[in-house]
Amino acid sequence: MRVKFNVAYKGTNYNGFAKQKDNIITIQGLLEQAIYELTQQVVTVIGSGRTDTGVHAINQVCLMDINTDAFHIPLNRFSRAMNAKLPNDIVVKHVEEASDDFHPRYAVKVKTYRYQILYDDYRDPFIDDVCYFYPYHLDIDRMKKGAQYIVGTHDFKCFCSANTQVKTTVRTIFKLDINLIKNVIQIDIAGSGFLYNMVRIIVGTLIEVGRGKMEPEFVEEIIASTNRDNAGPTAPAKGLTMYDVAYE
Amino acid sequence: MRVKFNVAYKGTNYNGFAKQKDNIITIQGLLEQAIYELTQQVVTVIGSGRTDTGVHAINQVCLMDINTDAFHIPLNRFSRAMNAKLPNDIVVKHVEEASDDFHPRYAVKVKTYRYQILYDDYRDPFIDDVCYFYPYHLDIDRMKKGAQYIVGTHDFKCFCSANTQVKTTVRTIFKLDINLIKNVIQIDIAGSGFLYNMVRIIVGTLIEVGRGKMEPEFVEEIIASTNRDNAGPTAPAKGLTMYDVAYE
Repeated sequence: MRVKFNVAYKGTNYNGFAKQKDNIITIQGLLEQAIYELTQQVVTVIGSGRTDTGVHAINQVCLMDINTDAFHIPLNRFSRAMNAKLPNDIVVKHVEEASDDFHPRYAVKVKTYRYQILYDDYRDPFIDDVCYFYPYHLDIDRMKKGAQYIVGTHDFKCFCSANTQVKTTVRTIFKLDINLIKNVIQIDIAGSGFLYNMVRIIVGTLIEVGRGKMEPEFVEEIIASTNRDNAGPTAPAKGLTMYDVAYE
Repeated sequence: MRVKFNVAYKGTNYNGFAKQKDNIITIQGLLEQAIYELTQQVVTVIGSGRTDTGVHAINQVCLMDINTDAFHIPLNRFSRAMNAKLPNDIVVKHVEEASDDFHPRYAVKVKTYRYQILYDDYRDPFIDDVCYFYPYHLDIDRMKKGAQYIVGTHDFKCFCSANTQVKTTVRTIFKLDINLIKNVIQIDIAGSGFLYNMVRIIVGTLIEVGRGKMEPEFVEEIIASTNRDNAGPTAPAKGLTMYDVAYE
């Protein structure tokens, strides 16, 4: 049976989502291990996307093919059984049967990421793991102006880490909202898909705009240049959260 | 000079506030070590109250006596200098000169604690360190009714861990508010002072009321009995945060 489930995790303590060598602790590796302990079946968990070391997820959609006749946990109790095997910072929710043609990555219509910047004089010990601490001045209106040039369908090669090979670097960004909630700048980006490090490079570029190092209008030129060197630095992983994944 | 400063910390990784043996990592120990690294002075940091292992603070008020002539960091930059020496989950704020007769514990007028219960079917990886996860039914109106008997001046011996020696177990509770904010039950307790484990035993008792094991009216009898055995269990440390300390 093809089974779909949702996972939330705080990535701080893990080497990203994708499984690596045996002694490297990853979200995928821990999920597969928990499933093995519960069912004695070796499965491959496929996520809607990889997340890097230190990146978090509120709704990572996963899939596995498993023989449900060979164990005795009904699907509606499977999340509780898995959570009992998993650390507290990885939580499985809503396990359900999926159709045979469902694929969590290829079927994605909209992916949403949130990047959080703690914009304050002091760190906050309670959200430090999920925010990039930025105690210097940022002009949020400038950042919003720069963000306008990113929305739409463009070749985003400039916002892609150099060492990736993809068929096309054209993507569609549906929205890019920037809001200051108390002392946290929340940057919400929804798109058809994202290149490697794309959200973090966009955020790093908008920070350059916000601190006055780049003019908002220069963002349009960066995109047109298709040159990674013109964009800002890659913002730290800890501020990034895979927020949601939407299918048809 | 007598110096007052405010500290916020997430207690998850520490063996409480109060300094212990050299190889036990405590908040007080780390603060004193950071001060030593900055000033080469051995000082004693006095807090407004101890917090146990795993307990957090949003505003712990601290004091130290230090020779400010012997180092070259102005007080208004001292917090930044300390934060550079401290882990990210301990943050020093608002360092200022205090009067010679100020004492962060004896001068307290009102102390406020917050206890957080994650009242949901699933854990939340982002707030798991600061909430007690309770996935079973709780009747919050019953908890509020039981809480009414606690407000006021009473002998709270029933809510005090057995092994403490204090002059009097009479304290005044000014307020005890219970609110469900999304899926978190926030219990805010303000009082003149608290006995050892008092907030956690009050919360453990209110949970017994909320889950139907005790009638709300029984809380009055528990207090009258002055017997710890009649109260509920001590709720886990991780849900407790020292919220604020108020002086004259």
